[in-house]
Amino acid sequence: MNETLIEKLNWRYATKAFNPEKKISDADWSTLEEALILTPSSYGLQPWKFIVIQDQELKVSLVGASYNQKQVADCSHLLVFAVQTQVTETDVNKLISATAEARGVEESSLDFYKKMMIGDIVEGPRSENCVGWAKLQSYIALGNFMTSAALLSIDCCPMEGFVSSLYDDALGLTDKGLTTAVVCPAGYRADDDKYALSSKVRYTADELIEHID
Amino acid sequence: MNETLIEKLNWRYATKAFNPEKKISDADWSTLEEALILTPSSYGLQPWKFIVIQDQELKVSLVGASYNQKQVADCSHLLVFAVQTQVTETDVNKLISATAEARGVEESSLDFYKKMMIGDIVEGPRSENCVGWAKLQSYIALGNFMTSAALLSIDCCPMEGFVSSLYDDALGLTDKGLTTAVVCPAGYRADDDKYALSSKVRYTADELIEHID
Repeated sequence: MNETLIEKLNWRYATKAFNPEKKISDADWSTLEEALILTPSSYGLQPWKFIVIQDQELKVSLVGASYNQKQVADCSHLLVFAVQTQVTETDVNKLISATAEARGVEESSLDFYKKMMIGDIVEGPRSENCVGWAKLQSYIALGNFMTSAALLSIDCCPMEGFVSSLYDDALGLTDKGLTTAVVCPAGYRADDDKYALSSKVRYTADELIEHID
Repeated sequence: MNETLIEKLNWRYATKAFNPEKKISDADWSTLEEALILTPSSYGLQPWKFIVIQDQELKVSLVGASYNQKQVADCSHLLVFAVQTQVTETDVNKLISATAEARGVEESSLDFYKKMMIGDIVEGPRSENCVGWAKLQSYIALGNFMTSAALLSIDCCPMEGFVSSLYDDALGLTDKGLTTAVVCPAGYRADDDKYALSSKVRYTADELIEHID
């Protein structure tokens, strides 16, 4: 597994040109959705919604909102990571109920956990920038997604270059208490994407890693 | 690979008790460091430093700064994700030089790319909250790390519950223009960690995923 992992992480790159004819199979996409759902998040709150767009008209209409990056139209599946703009006591209660049910315990046994979440994300220090906290969580999902996709030999292109308000409008997110955090077209590289052959640029271990033994 | 990936993502959990006797092998840790280095980041700027602490005295001294979570002391490797508090033109120039060298092109051919980064992270909209942007990138690394570790059957525990100023002081980060973004002890679960057997709590695909076909 060690070699496979490194080989796949070297194989992946931010795909600039997708082959619009080549679609991700249902089996592979279903694995990637399962991987997304399994992403860890702070307190387990899962403050996200993963929006999967295959509708070609919608994909094309989002190219403008993506600074004309045509990966959005040419990919197989356009994945939008949306996050909650607020976390409320209702959200905390939902997690507590789900936890009690999954683990066969009384909700009251989770009171400490519940109070901790409310005193942090709902009313405490992190509530002041809930969307910032939620976006951080969505980037865990993004990291997990990109590694998972690479392992399945699926290409993708993480993108921060988009106008979130335009995405929010197009996807009707605001009324749902959501906003677009990050976008990741997925599919297969075009044969002529010259970036596929470009050397990856990474600083050295000496520069990036400090050991305190 | 599909089944292995999902199996491993189900196997992993936020480890509450590590076996302090069981250490990650050099070969596995080296793979994880390579995976960290290969993490994608916005513009490829890699605004991070990965600090790997095995020094037991330092690990123990950080338990207090981690709200007494003893995973910090009992893990095999304590991984601290530090990020730059500013991105300067010097950082951009460093990336441009590295890119030109890796790809055998003239630096001048990358002027458009350079101007785009300066007009965004150094002087533009993202420069106002550079540390927020950098932290997002570090969470991609965290997501990649957790998935990579799971694939190698290595346990970890992502932690936002720590006092970043205390970590920054203990690791001398401020003078280096860095701050602690997130922490992730890694190692092997203790035989008696009851959380290892707890059901994972995840919302359903119907709740978390929206398809627009």
